[in-house]
Amino acid sequence: MRYELYYWPSIQGRGEFIRLALEEAGADYVDVARKTGKGMGMPALMAMLQNQAQTRPPFAPPILKAGDRVIAQTANILFFLGPRLKLAPADEADQLWTHQLQLTIADFVDEAHDLHHPIASSLYYEDQKTEALRRSAPFIAERIPKFLAYFERVLARNPAGDRYLVGDALTYADLSLFQVMAGLRYALPRAMKRIAPNHPRVVALATRVARRTRIAAYLKSKRRIAFNEQGIFRHYPELDR
Amino acid sequence: MRYELYYWPSIQGRGEFIRLALEEAGADYVDVARKTGKGMGMPALMAMLQNQAQTRPPFAPPILKAGDRVIAQTANILFFLGPRLKLAPADEADQLWTHQLQLTIADFVDEAHDLHHPIASSLYYEDQKTEALRRSAPFIAERIPKFLAYFERVLARNPAGDRYLVGDALTYADLSLFQVMAGLRYALPRAMKRIAPNHPRVVALATRVARRTRIAAYLKSKRRIAFNEQGIFRHYPELDR
Repeated sequence: MRYELYYWPSIQGRGEFIRLALEEAGADYVDVARKTGKGMGMPALMAMLQNQAQTRPPFAPPILKAGDRVIAQTANILFFLGPRLKLAPADEADQLWTHQLQLTIADFVDEAHDLHHPIASSLYYEDQKTEALRRSAPFIAERIPKFLAYFERVLARNPAGDRYLVGDALTYADLSLFQVMAGLRYALPRAMKRIAPNHPRVVALATRVARRTRIAAYLKSKRRIAFNEQGIFRHYPELDR
Repeated sequence: MRYELYYWPSIQGRGEFIRLALEEAGADYVDVARKTGKGMGMPALMAMLQNQAQTRPPFAPPILKAGDRVIAQTANILFFLGPRLKLAPADEADQLWTHQLQLTIADFVDEAHDLHHPIASSLYYEDQKTEALRRSAPFIAERIPKFLAYFERVLARNPAGDRYLVGDALTYADLSLFQVMAGLRYALPRAMKRIAPNHPRVVALATRVARRTRIAAYLKSKRRIAFNEQGIFRHYPELDR
C-alpha cells in the first residue's frame, strides 16, 4: 500500500503528526504537495480539496489517500493508520484510549495555534498581536502546565511503565507528544526551559522518540520541514515570557 | 448496559452531544452529576475527575462509564457509542467517515466557544469582551458560513440523498449538527437569521432531528438544560451582528 499524504508543502502543521507516523513505520508514502511532476505539487492538493466528484469531501488538510479511501482529520487518520502501521495496540479498548490521548493532544495543539491567532486565522499575526500578547500569559502559566501535567500523570499511571503513553510499546500518540514538545520548545524556549523540568516523564519520552533510528534519520533529513512562522508553532519572542 | 454520563450539571456544553445520542437511542443512562443520592451529584463527578487509582485518567468531562470502561473526549465517546446505539453504520469506512464529520463539528464547536473566550477560559467573558467583539466579525462573516457550506456540501453529495449526513439513516453526527444549529441560533439569532437560509439542507436536517419522537420529547423535558451564559453557546447581543 502506497499512502498519499495531502498537506501544505511549506509547514509542519497538522500534517507533521501524520508524517511522523509514516516515517516511524518506514511506510511507503508520498508527500504529494512537496513533489514535482504529474499529479503532484500544490495543483494536486488543490484538486483534492476542490474535487466536485468527491462524495465524502474533506474539510481541510491533512488528507490521506489509501487506495480508494480518502480520510481527513488528523486524529482520524492516525486512528486509521495506527493498527496498519503497528503504531496502535490490537485491542479495541486500547485503541480508543490511544485515540482519546490523541484528541487531547489535538486540543492542546489548537490552543497553541490560537496563541498567535486569538482573533481570526484569516488575519495576520501582526494584526492580532495585542490580543496574542494578552493570551500568552494564561497559556504559559495555566494551559501548558495543565496539559503537560496530564500527560505526566498518564505516563506515571501506565501499569506497563512510564516509557510509553499506552502499554509497553510505541504508539502514534507518543510520536505526537514528541512533536508538541518540539513545537513548544521552538515557539517558547524560555517558558519551556522553566516548565518542562516539572514533567520529567514527558521530557524523557520526547527524548527517546527523537533518538529512535527512523525518527532521528527523518529529523536530520530534508523531508523534515524546519519550524517557521507560518505553522502552528511560531517563535515570536514577545510571546515567550 | 446502563451507561453513566459524567458532565457538568448546569450546562448543555459538550455533554449535550452525548445526551442527544443516548436520548435518541432510548438508552438506559444516568446523568450522574444531575442526580442526588449516594454516588451521585457533583461529588461523584469530582471523584471521577480526581480518582488517583484511575490508570487511564480523563483530561476533562464529558466522561462515559460503560461497565468497567471509562471513556472521555466527546467524539471518542460517540465513536464508541455509535454502533452500540445503532447511531453509526456497521462498516468501518462509514464509521470513520461519520467520525471525521464529528471531528469537524468539534472544531466548529471549539471556535464557537472561543468567540466569547478568545483570551483564556479562566477569565470571565467581561474580562475579554473587547477581544470577543473583535472576534465576532470574522466568526460570523467567515467561519459560520464556511462550516455550514461544508455540511451543506456533504448533504448534497451524499449518494443516498440529502436527508442524512451519512448514508440513508440517522447517525450521531446528524444529532450533533442539529445541536450546533440550535446553539448558534440561541447565541447569534440575528446573524443566523441571515446566514441559515443559504444552507437549506442543513436547516432541513436540523428541523427533522428536532421533530424525531424521542428528541422532541427530550427537548420538552426537564432533562434538557436550557441554553445559558455558562455554556458553549452564549447569547451576548453585542456579539450578534
